[in-house]
Amino acid sequence: MMNYFNKENLNDVKILDKSEYPSKSPAKEKVSKDVEKLIKDLKIKDNSVLSFHHHLRNGDKVLNLVMKEIQKVGIEGITLMASSLFPVHKEIIPLIKDGTIENIVTSYITGELADVISRGGLKGNIIVQSHGGRARTILNEEIEIDIAFIASPSTDNMGNISGVNGRNSCGALGYAMADGIKAKKVVAVTDSLIEYPNYPADITEDYVDNVLLIESIGLKEGIVSGTTRVTKDPIGLKIAKDTLKVMEATGLLKDGLSFQSGAGGTSLAVTSYLKDYMIKNNIKGSFASGGITGYLTDMLEEDLFTSLFDVQCFDLEAIESLKKNPNHLRMSASQYGNPEVSTVVDNLDIVILGATEIDRNFNVNVTTGSDGVLMGGSGGHQDTAAGSKVSIIVSKLFSSRIPLIKDKVDVITTPGSTVDVLVTERGIAINPLRKDLIKSFEEANLKTVTIEELKKYSESIMGKPKDIKKSDRIIGLSEYRDGSILDYIYAVEE
Amino acid sequence: MMNYFNKENLNDVKILDKSEYPSKSPAKEKVSKDVEKLIKDLKIKDNSVLSFHHHLRNGDKVLNLVMKEIQKVGIEGITLMASSLFPVHKEIIPLIKDGTIENIVTSYITGELADVISRGGLKGNIIVQSHGGRARTILNEEIEIDIAFIASPSTDNMGNISGVNGRNSCGALGYAMADGIKAKKVVAVTDSLIEYPNYPADITEDYVDNVLLIESIGLKEGIVSGTTRVTKDPIGLKIAKDTLKVMEATGLLKDGLSFQSGAGGTSLAVTSYLKDYMIKNNIKGSFASGGITGYLTDMLEEDLFTSLFDVQCFDLEAIESLKKNPNHLRMSASQYGNPEVSTVVDNLDIVILGATEIDRNFNVNVTTGSDGVLMGGSGGHQDTAAGSKVSIIVSKLFSSRIPLIKDKVDVITTPGSTVDVLVTERGIAINPLRKDLIKSFEEANLKTVTIEELKKYSESIMGKPKDIKKSDRIIGLSEYRDGSILDYIYAVEE
Repeated sequence: MMNYFNKENLNDVKILDKSEYPSKSPAKEKVSKDVEKLIKDLKIKDNSVLSFHHHLRNGDKVLNLVMKEIQKVGIEGITLMASSLFPVHKEIIPLIKDGTIENIVTSYITGELADVISRGGLKGNIIVQSHGGRARTILNEEIEIDIAFIASPSTDNMGNISGVNGRNSCGALGYAMADGIKAKKVVAVTDSLIEYPNYPADITEDYVDNVLLIESIGLKEGIVSGTTRVTKDPIGLKIAKDTLKVMEATGLLKDGLSFQSGAGGTSLAVTSYLKDYMIKNNIKGSFASGGITGYLTDMLEEDLFTSLFDVQCFDLEAIESLKKNPNHLRMSASQYGNPEVSTVVDNLDIVILGATEIDRNFNVNVTTGSDGVLMGGSGGHQDTAAGSKVSIIVSKLFSSRIPLIKDKVDVITTPGSTVDVLVTERGIAINPLRKDLIKSFEEANLKTVTIEELKKYSESIMGKPKDIKKSDRIIGLSEYRDGSILDYIYAVEE
Repeated sequence: MMNYFNKENLNDVKILDKSEYPSKSPAKEKVSKDVEKLIKDLKIKDNSVLSFHHHLRNGDKVLNLVMKEIQKVGIEGITLMASSLFPVHKEIIPLIKDGTIENIVTSYITGELADVISRGGLKGNIIVQSHGGRARTILNEEIEIDIAFIASPSTDNMGNISGVNGRNSCGALGYAMADGIKAKKVVAVTDSLIEYPNYPADITEDYVDNVLLIESIGLKEGIVSGTTRVTKDPIGLKIAKDTLKVMEATGLLKDGLSFQSGAGGTSLAVTSYLKDYMIKNNIKGSFASGGITGYLTDMLEEDLFTSLFDVQCFDLEAIESLKKNPNHLRMSASQYGNPEVSTVVDNLDIVILGATEIDRNFNVNVTTGSDGVLMGGSGGHQDTAAGSKVSIIVSKLFSSRIPLIKDKVDVITTPGSTVDVLVTERGIAINPLRKDLIKSFEEANLKTVTIEELKKYSESIMGKPKDIKKSDRIIGLSEYRDGSILDYIYAVEE
């Protein structure tokens, strides 16, 4: 087309002859019910990149079904770009072993599959990246997805995908949106075919090439919890209470507050205390973001926040709220945390995060467990830690007698330069980089300790944690959201 | 990143040194109030491609403001990618003359600016393309937009753009979406800065680089009509009545009907007759699409359609409906009619379209007037004609004593191979290509004539239309939605 801007060329431009005139363009049939035939028709090549999302979590049946069908056809060397992998995905272990799947790119992995990979079971490598980092690599074409298989709680015959309709509704589909936009081919896999047009659409028909209708995309009870619950553990509750004091001391608990926390018991306790605090002090917040729970939708409906930015729904209350509240907003993983664009996390005041391990420089590991085996990944950890004004790690000093604080974490998931405060049952430590917070906390008369003091106490109780026995074989990388590499992931010793 | 999939390379991968650890990433300030400074800061180069949308129609102040500021800086050779250009844009005529603007790509152009261009006033060329074709060229990167200046009825400080909020609300922003996604830089130009987050967002913050706050983006009365009105002209009403008979004869007036018509008086009369017909016959349609009027929102609210696909709102009723009706859906121009993807037009049963000229092969001109001067363009004409099961042209045989039917239309806008029926006050002509329709109409005892008969009648009244005096200087091209070229556009003789 740009050639047409050259004046001299116009006389040479060929115009269509009548015989070449276009015909009408009726809609093409997209729906198929035969997974075997569809996989053959897609002519997937060896070494393709195939993507899946994790909104169906441990109830997902789509990834296993599709990948096993691909195995049958004898395709090899697949790079599996799954936004997260859960225990249910142990069914693809044989595909790791026989080389159907060669590499894995994910933001979170846990269960037997993670175990096998940690023992060196993957022919290629595993890259663990953040939710925002995943959106970045897809949208900037650092990784080109050949086919995105999008588990769809509902579509119509043209492929308008909605996460709130259908019998296996899971709510927002934030992690699937970049895949929908960028994959060379998009297959919506659904068990609920709805009359055209299906709305509200998370991904619209113009992005969808095929609709595969199967019997069931998932098990409801694995997809969402009926409801998420605050911890009853008194230590967890004490940490949550102290976290509220920390939040108060930051000076950010005022009108316009923006807040994110996870769905763990202690995080929910923080959310619950925050709610009481906001009611008592008549604070009207701006937004809450991330994975959304019923605790946050209650706060939305009580007008404590003006809106929610929802990348995934954690419970049934969140799904119901997304259906009915116009200020409960869907967001893509890119809008959530892609470091190459302007995002919601960059507008976040406070985020509450967990940790498996933390070192004296506040570097956090949530990728591997105390035995060095993969059992997590960044998810939104890196993104929110970087974007928020104050990132707060809440954790007990010991988990099953294993200490939290170490000289060196097994794998660096989130760099300490973006982690601001650690709240434990034995005290609150501020990252020395945050001189502003040290000052605020002093002014608020909030007692703090150094992370060294916490470490010393921890070691006085449980002794110095033993080094994890790792082999010297690198099996993967812990990637930072911007694409730089934070750490190697080593195989564990057999 | 793909290098990381090579097992051997992992040991060589450089991991970040502690000294290189990232810092926090707080949100950057995007808002500026100084258009002069912003234009300088953007460092726009000569020969850049700049895009604008036309949702503010003849009330738009943004294009003139921005382009005049660019002229001041002395930038030359701009390709102006404006989704449509209206009489209000005559203010940029001096920029055509002095070479600030060299080429124009648009879907519709009318007014003094069109006149100047038709007289050879543009240094470069003008490409007239359809709405769907525009989305195609942007999304497939055939044209790369350097900066999209998006007139925004409202944004927040992070650039979440909503067309329904703000004092100059215009409703859906379907024509700006591809620009928002693909432009190298996106500047939201607004006169209503709203508290974060602004929702529902047509374009989200992750796509927006700058927010320019100005006094006024437009004149409300030029943006939308208070309400759109059915024609009172008895000839127009007769044509509309006959069009309903045509629609009935197609067999498509039944449950599940999908329908589109424009906002012209005759088209609205067809919509109005259709409404009565659907009520009387208890028909529940599927969707109506395109530019949306109060006539269609009434039909939505009376449950005659399950949903509306809205690419732009034509009147205040449409904007109000978009705000409150969850089944009144926004659509992008790509979802509407991009020929490279699956679209709404391809699911359309019937579309009602106009014509300035039509030839015996049903080729339609809506790009130039009877004097050969630019006064329109495809808009959605090509897209809906191609996608719909039946495309119906409604037109009087004469407009200001100028005949509709010619041996050869001045510029082919829409190829006759996609145009199915012509309804005039002197009879209904079916495109001979549509043998199926000829049969249906016979079965329905609907009397038709040939287009030759209509032409003969027309010439018996007004004589053979004179040839338009055109120079042999090609000034532009009439592009088909798929990128092929339908026709040259010649300068008119001085």
